[in-house]
Amino acid sequence: MPDLDFIFNPKSVAIVGVSSVTDSLTNRNFLKPLLDCGYQGKIYPVNPHMAEIMGLRVYRSVLEIPEPVDSVVSGLPASLVPKLMRECAEAKVKAVTCFSAGFSETGEAEGTELEREVVDIARRGGVRLLGPNCLGVHNPAIGCTFEAGGSRRGGHVGFLSQSGGNTRELILAGAPRGICFSKAVSYGNAAGLDETDFLDYFARDPDTRVVAAYIEGIKRPQGFTRALRAIARDKPVVILKGGRTEAGTRAVMSHTSSLAGSERVWDALCRQTGARQVTDMAELADAVLTFSYLKPPRGRRAAVVGIGGGASVQAADDCEKAGLLVPPFPPELRRELRAFTTSAGTGIANPVDTSPDVYWEPALYRETAKLVSEYDGIDVVLVMFAAVQAAKRGVQELKRQIEAVIDAGRSMSKPLAVIVFTAGMVEAEKMASEVQVQCLEAGFPVYPTMGRAARAINHIVSYSERRKL
Amino acid sequence: MPDLDFIFNPKSVAIVGVSSVTDSLTNRNFLKPLLDCGYQGKIYPVNPHMAEIMGLRVYRSVLEIPEPVDSVVSGLPASLVPKLMRECAEAKVKAVTCFSAGFSETGEAEGTELEREVVDIARRGGVRLLGPNCLGVHNPAIGCTFEAGGSRRGGHVGFLSQSGGNTRELILAGAPRGICFSKAVSYGNAAGLDETDFLDYFARDPDTRVVAAYIEGIKRPQGFTRALRAIARDKPVVILKGGRTEAGTRAVMSHTSSLAGSERVWDALCRQTGARQVTDMAELADAVLTFSYLKPPRGRRAAVVGIGGGASVQAADDCEKAGLLVPPFPPELRRELRAFTTSAGTGIANPVDTSPDVYWEPALYRETAKLVSEYDGIDVVLVMFAAVQAAKRGVQELKRQIEAVIDAGRSMSKPLAVIVFTAGMVEAEKMASEVQVQCLEAGFPVYPTMGRAARAINHIVSYSERRKL
Repeated sequence: MPDLDFIFNPKSVAIVGVSSVTDSLTNRNFLKPLLDCGYQGKIYPVNPHMAEIMGLRVYRSVLEIPEPVDSVVSGLPASLVPKLMRECAEAKVKAVTCFSAGFSETGEAEGTELEREVVDIARRGGVRLLGPNCLGVHNPAIGCTFEAGGSRRGGHVGFLSQSGGNTRELILAGAPRGICFSKAVSYGNAAGLDETDFLDYFARDPDTRVVAAYIEGIKRPQGFTRALRAIARDKPVVILKGGRTEAGTRAVMSHTSSLAGSERVWDALCRQTGARQVTDMAELADAVLTFSYLKPPRGRRAAVVGIGGGASVQAADDCEKAGLLVPPFPPELRRELRAFTTSAGTGIANPVDTSPDVYWEPALYRETAKLVSEYDGIDVVLVMFAAVQAAKRGVQELKRQIEAVIDAGRSMSKPLAVIVFTAGMVEAEKMASEVQVQCLEAGFPVYPTMGRAARAINHIVSYSERRKL
Repeated sequence: MPDLDFIFNPKSVAIVGVSSVTDSLTNRNFLKPLLDCGYQGKIYPVNPHMAEIMGLRVYRSVLEIPEPVDSVVSGLPASLVPKLMRECAEAKVKAVTCFSAGFSETGEAEGTELEREVVDIARRGGVRLLGPNCLGVHNPAIGCTFEAGGSRRGGHVGFLSQSGGNTRELILAGAPRGICFSKAVSYGNAAGLDETDFLDYFARDPDTRVVAAYIEGIKRPQGFTRALRAIARDKPVVILKGGRTEAGTRAVMSHTSSLAGSERVWDALCRQTGARQVTDMAELADAVLTFSYLKPPRGRRAAVVGIGGGASVQAADDCEKAGLLVPPFPPELRRELRAFTTSAGTGIANPVDTSPDVYWEPALYRETAKLVSEYDGIDVVLVMFAAVQAAKRGVQELKRQIEAVIDAGRSMSKPLAVIVFTAGMVEAEKMASEVQVQCLEAGFPVYPTMGRAARAINHIVSYSERRKL
């Protein structure tokens, strides 16, 4: 197992192919983010025709840089990469992140041959290759990144991804949800370092406690199975497999030229190793959020609290379809709830479909959440808010109610998850994003729909069940 | 089959139980929306202890109203409804919408008995009963509604729903998406008029071209099957069945005291009649949108255009999982696309994963959409935008690109659907809602994810296929 710390924690980065066109892809994806995020290592821009860029000296070539370089990023056209790789070998560069595309993913003989050549030069020269056709490393704790728009706090999620776009999406969309990374890596065609290397790295990385992966193909099936089995014993692993259909498999070929493998084999692999498989990036984000924030429930029995008859029926259906249980409450608990919940137009049997005067009164809604959490026939409490309705009351009233539920959550022994449903309406989305901050500060995860919450909680419960075996 | 026009197009509405507390539920749900939406009929507020409300004379009882009343809304406590119903019978009121809850849905003998009494009085007195435990009728064309926040334009969607919350949600969340109603009705416990009556009404209503339903239970199975079979032959019907699991079935009991019936029987009913079954309100809205806006595709072969390798793989997987096909493009078409699409880091085999310089150049992105639409091996064109990426460019550039695609859509013979993906980020949601307006004005539906678009399009294709049989 190689020590990849120089890749994830480089002390210096050279960016080859910076441009006098300020907004060029290479400037925008690599140089600017390092500067914006206050990268703590040294930055060496490289371009034979420039002297300075953004206040930094520009070097004519990698060979001209006077100090050792941990990591080189290539923004050059594919045809120039072999020459660069030879120079990197000569300069004893430890790793090259090849952002350049135009290799095997083109499906053309020329690109495939070029990729083979680059891999060969790198191997003989002792240079580790990331990519080609990738964005490389995101390590927010040291400001080493290709995406300045995410959270700058270091966290505990390790993400390995064959898609740069998916990596960027999880960084950007994860930030407001409280998803923070130990390290993320976009590794494209995986011609050099591959998914097995990254799983091994994350297994040993003490900062990484939850592992997520977007994988299109497996380079070394035996090694991967071994690595997945090993890491999944210690850390939850969430995997999105790209290319699960015929058309998806073809798309994988033109994206990273990976061999997608059959869906059935993949399902079996996840079942055997205990990795949790998801079907899209939203579910991946939900699962990562859950493993990061939710205290693991002892079982799959949920208490559901909210308002609205249709919403309660849907919540119950969503929970059970996702593999959770929504057991009926016993008579004593129903009596306690009924003491302050009118019987007209409400339900208290689980789900609790409460009345407006309870839903909008902090003491009563808090009491509802607290009472159901104390029933020993349930393992997790799910409280729903509908920002659609709240829009008529205003965000302040919603915040007050959220605060009441957070207050209940702090004193309960069961895990609490909050659902803020917006039906996709812009005004409601704004309110939801405000109250999400409240919940995250208190350590409670927020989901946009009950269905997504239930699927995510099923992942953590299933993971825990397997560990107990 | 009763003529229910006096329910959906009442010439006068009496609201019993208006309150001096301005923001009371009855005032807010009924009186205020009628005033806000400029209801064209007469409004008679009723309360024995008030003289005037919001500039209208208040009557002491229904019996005091000097003219005939089509529709009475009851906001009274359940125990007072029998007396009201007797007065309505005496005053020859045609229909009563019973907003009041506290009947059979309480699961208590008292409420069940009260409901039986009210039904009995109504039947003997020749008064049609809507509810109890419901919001009643939404007819935007005449301003008769319980929800002023939706679109005020009359449209072609008829919605029957046992949940008031779900009705409100489709009205509110549907408005920015361009979903407009001929009529919607929330009918709660269905103790009087039921789903069969409404299906029959929508079958004959010329304004209704698409029918949507949220149903928790069937009162008259034989009549319902007959009505569903009849209407589904002429108009697309989209059904969300509440209570498809054990917990959902129990929730249905405390919501509308309906007998949910087994999921298997329900699936078979939809298969036999050609009704399209959906699993949540989001899918219901997507399907209704599609039946309202998308020119029916001749088949299920989709051309997919967008940017991003991971996104393209996901799009292909989503389409095929939903039942669409994403056939590979022939060599001639690939050559045409390749003429202006660099081979590095792109795909042109379907999905098209284009390069940034095509994606952000109106003429080239328009040409891409146009070229793929002309291939006779595809039936529908799906163009993806990611507002997450666009957030870095700004909304103006995104709008320009959308305009280019709309332009291509106008001249193509195949239907076009637009996907604007936001990953749930607030800034991106704002941009998406702006460009949604553009697309709708041009008549093209917008979906938030490829998965949702594909499932919705599968509904319209499957519906068309069945009609051809």
